[in-house]
Amino acid sequence: MSSVARVTEISAISPESFEDAVRVGIQRATKTLRGVTSAWVKDFNVEIEDGNITGYRVNMEVTFVLEDGE
Amino acid sequence: MSSVARVTEISAISPESFEDAVRVGIQRATKTLRGVTSAWVKDFNVEIEDGNITGYRVNMEVTFVLEDGE
Amino acid sequence: MSSVARVTEISAISPESFEDAVRVGIQRATKTLRGVTSAWVKDFNVEIEDGNITGYRVNMEVTFVLEDGE
Amino acid sequence: MSSVARVTEISAISPESFEDAVRVGIQRATKTLRGVTSAWVKDFNVEIEDGNITGYRVNMEVTFVLEDGE
Amino acid sequence: MSSVARVTEISAISPESFEDAVRVGIQRATKTLRGVTSAWVKDFNVEIEDGNITGYRVNMEVTFVLEDGE
Amino acid sequence: MSSVARVTEISAISPESFEDAVRVGIQRATKTLRGVTSAWVKDFNVEIEDGNITGYRVNMEVTFVLEDGE
Amino acid sequence: MSSVARVTEISAISPESFEDAVRVGIQRATKTLRGVTSAWVKDFNVEIEDGNITGYRVNMEVTFVLEDGE
Amino acid sequence: MSSVARVTEISAISPESFEDAVRVGIQRATKTLRGVTSAWVKDFNVEIEDGNITGYRVNMEVTFVLEDGE
Amino acid sequence: MSSVARVTEISAISPESFEDAVRVGIQRATKTLRGVTSAWVKDFNVEIEDGNITGYRVNMEVTFVLEDGE
Amino acid sequence: MSSVARVTEISAISPESFEDAVRVGIQRATKTLRGVTSAWVKDFNVEIEDGNITGYRVNMEVTFVLEDGE
Amino acid sequence: MSSVARVTEISAISPESFEDAVRVGIQRATKTLRGVTSAWVKDFNVEIEDGNITGYRVNMEVTFVLEDGE
Amino acid sequence: MSSVARVTEISAISPESFEDAVRVGIQRATKTLRGVTSAWVKDFNVEIEDGNITGYRVNMEVTFVLEDGE
Repeated sequence: MSSVARVTEISAISPESFEDAVRVGIQRATKTLRGVTSAWVKDFNVEIEDGNITGYRVNMEVTFVLEDGE
Repeated sequence: MSSVARVTEISAISPESFEDAVRVGIQRATKTLRGVTSAWVKDFNVEIEDGNITGYRVNMEVTFVLEDGE
Repeated sequence: MSSVARVTEISAISPESFEDAVRVGIQRATKTLRGVTSAWVKDFNVEIEDGNITGYRVNMEVTFVLEDGE
Repeated sequence: MSSVARVTEISAISPESFEDAVRVGIQRATKTLRGVTSAWVKDFNVEIEDGNITGYRVNMEVTFVLEDGE
Repeated sequence: MSSVARVTEISAISPESFEDAVRVGIQRATKTLRGVTSAWVKDFNVEIEDGNITGYRVNMEVTFVLEDGE
Repeated sequence: MSSVARVTEISAISPESFEDAVRVGIQRATKTLRGVTSAWVKDFNVEIEDGNITGYRVNMEVTFVLEDGE
Repeated sequence: MSSVARVTEISAISPESFEDAVRVGIQRATKTLRGVTSAWVKDFNVEIEDGNITGYRVNMEVTFVLEDGE
Repeated sequence: MSSVARVTEISAISPESFEDAVRVGIQRATKTLRGVTSAWVKDFNVEIEDGNITGYRVNMEVTFVLEDGE
Repeated sequence: MSSVARVTEISAISPESFEDAVRVGIQRATKTLRGVTSAWVKDFNVEIEDGNITGYRVNMEVTFVLEDGE
Repeated sequence: MSSVARVTEISAISPESFEDAVRVGIQRATKTLRGVTSAWVKDFNVEIEDGNITGYRVNMEVTFVLEDGE
Repeated sequence: MSSVARVTEISAISPESFEDAVRVGIQRATKTLRGVTSAWVKDFNVEIEDGNITGYRVNMEVTFVLEDGE
Repeated sequence: MSSVARVTEISAISPESFEDAVRVGIQRATKTLRGVTSAWVKDFNVEIEDGNITGYRVNMEVTFVLEDGE
C-alpha cells in the first residue's frame, strides 16, 4: 500500500540539555501535527552568556504521515 | 517580474517502483497545493521483509509557486 | 526558557539583484508568517535569455518563532 | 527495548535497469545476511560501451538487525 | 600504462522515465564524444504541470577517455 | 610501525537516551569484535509514537584495529 | 519532448562586485555558447591586497541547451 | 550597526558525557576569549578501551564577538 | 619556494548589504592580521525584525600568508 | 550479466608516506578478501609527535567482487 | 580588470603514483588548453589486480584562463 | 580526565610534492604552537605555469592540545 508523509524542520531550545530540547520540539510539533513518527536531529548548538551555557538548541527534521483529509 | 515559491519535503512509498512512489507523492501534494512546478528526488530507499522488497520510498523537495492570497 | 521555531524554505526571484530577491522573499514570507527572525540564503541562481540575465533567484531557509496558538 | 543493527555497503550491477540492480543486490545480501530491513541507494551509475548502456550500477547501504548470537 | 579521461556534465529530460532520460542524454553525448565509458547520475528531478509529471530530468557526469589527437 | 584498522557502521536504539544508545551499540560491537578503539556518532534520530519519544537511535562508525590472524 | 543540455563551470572576477562578476562571466559564456538558460553561483570569493578588496570572484555552473548539430 | 566575530574550532573530551565535554570546552574557551556567544557542535566521538567508553569527545565551532582592541 | 598561510573564520554583519558585510569583515581582519590575500564567503544570512531585514551577515574563511616571525 | 560487490572501510597507517599507507592497507585487505578491484582514498591524516610526522594515515573504501559461495 | 576562466574535470591514471597521475593529467590538459593555472585534486583512487596496485587514479578540476578569441 | 584541543587551518605550498607541503606546514605550525598531535589534509591543489607544476599546495586542519596557561 502507498503512503505519503511530510517532513518539516523544527528548531527547539532548552535551558537543560540537548535531549530536553528534542523533547520540547517534539511536544510542540505533536500539538499541531498528527501522525509524527520520527525526527532526525541534524544540528546541535549551544548559546552562551558570560561564559555559561544558557541554551541547548537542536534543529530537527520531523516526519509525519499524512491522512487523507490533510 | 518578481515571484515567490515555497519548497516542502514529501516522503512517499509505493510497493511498485521508485517512479510510482514519485507519482504517488506528487499526486498527494497537488491535491492540497496549487502551483506545483517541480520536485527534486533527494533520496531513494527500499524497505525489505523476508528477503523481498516491499516498498520503494523517495524523499522529494517539492516546489510550488505562491499566489497572492496564500 | 524553552522556545520552538519552524524553518521553511522559500525560493524568490527578482529582475534586479540577489538582494532584491532576498527582500522579495522575506516580504512575502512575513505577510503570512509571524515571528520571522532570520534566513539563510542557501543557493544563488541566475536565469538567462538571449545572453541577458533576466532573473536573480535565491533559495532561503526562513526561521520563524512559534507562538502558543500556532 | 534496545536493539542493534549493522549497515554494510553493497554495489550491484544489472544489464536491465537500476531497479533490477537494486533487486540483484538485495537478493545477494539476503542470501548471507539475516534480518535485512532496508537499504538506501546512495549512487546510481551506468556503464557504456560503443554508445550503448551495458550496465546499471547502484551502491546501497543495507541495514540488517543483529540477533544475539551474531 | 597511463591514460587520461575527461568528465563533462549533461542534463537530459524525457517525458517517459528517469531511465529514458539517462538513455537520451547518453545517446546525445556519444553522438559527439568518442570513448564514453560511464556516467554518474547525480540528480533526479521531475517537472510538473497541472498536477501531472511532464518531464523526468537527470543530471549526469559523463566520463570519456581521451585519444591522442584530442 | 604500520597498522591496519577496519571501520564498520552500527545502528543502535535505546528507550533511554542517545548516550545509552551509544553504549548499547558499543557493547554489542565489542562482544564480537576485538580491538575497538573509537566510534564516530554520525546520525541522531528519535522514534515517536502518540506524541512520545519511544526510541533514541544513533548511527556510528566503529573503528577496530586488526590483528594478524584476522 | 526530450532535450539535452550541457553544464560547464566558469570562474569570473570583477573589481566591482559579485553581481558584476556574474554578468562578466555570463557575457563571456554567451559569446561562444548558444542556448545558455541559467547559472548556479556555487562559490563567492574576494581577493585582497594591502587590506583592500581588489577582486570579486564567482564560480558558476552554466547550463546551455544543445541543438542538434552540436 | 556593524559587528565582527571570529569562529574558532575547539575539541574537548570528558569521561562523563557529550554535554560535559561541551561544558569543558566552553569553560576552557571562555577563560581566554571574551565575548563567546554560541557554539555549533559539529562532531561527536567516543573513545573506547577494553569494551568500555573512556571518553566522550566533541568538536565545536565557537563564535566570539570581537571588541575594538582585538 | 615554500610558503605557509593560515585560514581563519570571520563572521561579519552590516545593516547595508552582503558586500558591505564582506568589507566590514575584511577591514577588521586586516587591522590585526598582516598578509591577508583572499577570503571565501561560505555563508550568507539575513536577520529580520518586524518583517524588515536589519542585518546582512556573512561567514568568511580568510587566508593570510605567514611571515617568518609569526 | 549481473554481479555484486561489497565495499568495506579500511584505515591504514605507515611511518613512510601516504602511498605506503595505501599499500599496507591493500595488502592487509587482500590477505583476507578475494576479488578486491579498487579503493577510494577518502581521508588523509598525519600523526605528529614533538614536531615530527610519525605516521601517515589513510581511510579507504575498498571494493571486492563477491563470488557465489560468499 | 575583469577576467574569465573555465574549469574542466580530468581523470588521469598512472601505474607509478598519485603525483605521477597528476602530472600525466596536467600534461595532457596543457597540450590542448592554453592558460592552465591550477588544479584541485578532488578524488584519489587505486585500481587493484591480484592483490597488487596496478593504477593510481586522480580526478582533478583544472582551471584555465580564457583569452579573447576562445 | 578532561582535555581540550584547538583546531586551526594551515595552507602550505612546496615546489616538491604534496608530502613535502604537509611537512613544510607542520614544521611552521610546530614552531609557534606546542602540543600539535595530528592534522587532517582536507584539500590538495597544484599550481601550474607554462604547462609545468610549480607548486603542490595542501590545506590542513591541525589539532594541538591546550595546556593550562594558554
